[in-house]
Amino acid sequence: MPETFHVVAPAAHERLVVAAYRHRGFEEAEARQAARLATAATRHGIRTHNAIKALHLDDLFGSRAGGCRPGATIRRLPSRFDACEVWDADRKLGQAVAWEAIETCIALADVHGSGTVSVDNAFHYLWGGGYVMEAARRGYLAYTNCTAALAEVVPFGGVFPTLGTNPHSWGFPTTAAVGFPVVIDWATSVIAMGRVQQLAREGKPLPAEAAVDEAGRPTTDPHRAVSLLPFGGHKGYGLSLINELVAGLIGGSLPTLRSCPGGDPGERHCCTFFFQVIHPDAISGGAFAHGRSQAENVRAVLADILGHGNERCRLPGQPEAEAAARCDRSGGLLFSTAEVEALNEFARAAGLEPFDVATLPRV
Amino acid sequence: MPETFHVVAPAAHERLVVAAYRHRGFEEAEARQAARLATAATRHGIRTHNAIKALHLDDLFGSRAGGCRPGATIRRLPSRFDACEVWDADRKLGQAVAWEAIETCIALADVHGSGTVSVDNAFHYLWGGGYVMEAARRGYLAYTNCTAALAEVVPFGGVFPTLGTNPHSWGFPTTAAVGFPVVIDWATSVIAMGRVQQLAREGKPLPAEAAVDEAGRPTTDPHRAVSLLPFGGHKGYGLSLINELVAGLIGGSLPTLRSCPGGDPGERHCCTFFFQVIHPDAISGGAFAHGRSQAENVRAVLADILGHGNERCRLPGQPEAEAAARCDRSGGLLFSTAEVEALNEFARAAGLEPFDVATLPRV
Repeated sequence: MPETFHVVAPAAHERLVVAAYRHRGFEEAEARQAARLATAATRHGIRTHNAIKALHLDDLFGSRAGGCRPGATIRRLPSRFDACEVWDADRKLGQAVAWEAIETCIALADVHGSGTVSVDNAFHYLWGGGYVMEAARRGYLAYTNCTAALAEVVPFGGVFPTLGTNPHSWGFPTTAAVGFPVVIDWATSVIAMGRVQQLAREGKPLPAEAAVDEAGRPTTDPHRAVSLLPFGGHKGYGLSLINELVAGLIGGSLPTLRSCPGGDPGERHCCTFFFQVIHPDAISGGAFAHGRSQAENVRAVLADILGHGNERCRLPGQPEAEAAARCDRSGGLLFSTAEVEALNEFARAAGLEPFDVATLPRV
Repeated sequence: MPETFHVVAPAAHERLVVAAYRHRGFEEAEARQAARLATAATRHGIRTHNAIKALHLDDLFGSRAGGCRPGATIRRLPSRFDACEVWDADRKLGQAVAWEAIETCIALADVHGSGTVSVDNAFHYLWGGGYVMEAARRGYLAYTNCTAALAEVVPFGGVFPTLGTNPHSWGFPTTAAVGFPVVIDWATSVIAMGRVQQLAREGKPLPAEAAVDEAGRPTTDPHRAVSLLPFGGHKGYGLSLINELVAGLIGGSLPTLRSCPGGDPGERHCCTFFFQVIHPDAISGGAFAHGRSQAENVRAVLADILGHGNERCRLPGQPEAEAAARCDRSGGLLFSTAEVEALNEFARAAGLEPFDVATLPRV
């Protein structure tokens, strides 16, 4: 039986998220940027990065734990380069910093062809795919990576977790070609630690080569799994290293100390972000086969890839586009009963009336 | 028993490669750029992209097949952007175009923080890792991707090969930190078609989930394998799509028609290249833990990742650095007997004296 969802009006969802962040001391503008990302994530079916996850993250590592500073001001560092900026985010709310960074990258790309913003002293931005999807929807190529909060992943050939789940997100301006932006967005571990815990609760085995036990040996027993493995062996390990190297060049310190503040005042525990946007005209040779436009050419390329018997293949970003279409048909954001109850806890804590699950429309 | 190698003097190797390319009608400067890449590949142990592979590729798809035009001139296309260039390579030798592109990216990055060169109408550049390694050795972050010659890879969930083995190459300025540039460089298929053929000759099975048979079913029988699979399921598929999307935006046409010229004058069959270099100062926040320099910080980060019991892990680029050190100790480039014989065929064809295998030093 397919899962039943409750339809929550976007305005009511935004009111709740803004109130929850305001209640934690965040400024109105920050709270609205948090709500913007939570709405985008839920609308696109990214249930792992909705408002509930964002507020739990704030509880664990954020304004309640000292990792994030409500009302902080981004400091733009001096630079001799005109197409790249470096920011000290002063641990400002990650979603607010990320939305601003992607706008700045777009403005730089409009002038220089490409625009890059590196962010030191950052707090989590949650769903990297959301920021690149926004830029891609507006016609740009976009990329972001960040360092994940905790070192949970064992390097290829190793035994101890010293890497984050370090995600990469790429967005492509394919709306004119296929109706939605292609968004390639995933962590560099096979699965997330949350998935290990879920499978443990359900008594189900892990996929092979996804996790290791205390001694660093691969295990499919979720109860024995203590650390994760990168996907694709040495290739996924390399992709995870990219985030740590970029972070190390920006200003991130040791992965095993990240998000774990101790007593050492000279140490640093923050995440970093890297964003880049490229204007599609800045890479176009303009000479497409059969006189096609750039968008027509991309459409033809994708039709070739998904033709020849491959019609059942899907494009990255397609499930997200379908989830958004379903929300739009339903007239609101879709949450499970458990999710509405979790939202209601945040509503009560912020002094708002909770949702009445019985009266919400269902799909 | 470890394989025996013959030591070939770099000058003799260069003379041979230059003569072979000159014999095929390439200009002196082009031939020297081809030799430069072949030397770098052999010195770093990249035997799959040495001079023999380069000249075979020229036989199959290049100057002898019409895919590459000796003496062609790169046309720099007009652009309104100052940090990005787009070139029409007019099918000029890929190694010559790629070395020039990486130099241009470095020059752009010195001014703008990042520099991007997209190349339409390109012929193969062989070893992407070589170009980013050069930029990384000189202190920059560098990235390149290209479209592989042939559509040999089946998209995730599909049955028919419509994607190239589409490689990605990233180089990082880590020489001051760890003694060599970290270079992450691989194709997005699990293995190459050449490896399938090698395992077929040796009567050995393929790895699981690396190839499919005529009907698109996974097989470990190298004799039944007709197409390859992306590594890491949907994640490697996404990485392969990146190259096709970038190519489609630059000017590449249908992947299944690439390198397969037919009778259709409006169609295009070329590869494309994408290069980017970033100046490390353009992403540095400058506030490293414990007052470290940027290089000291990267060293500390990598020591953390490879510590805690992970001391047996290696960094991408480390095998290449060790191969180079071995060559340098040996006083030349290392080739197997079969490789020297293959080089000798090219030497004879170009009217040069072949190497005498018996008199070459051995290691």
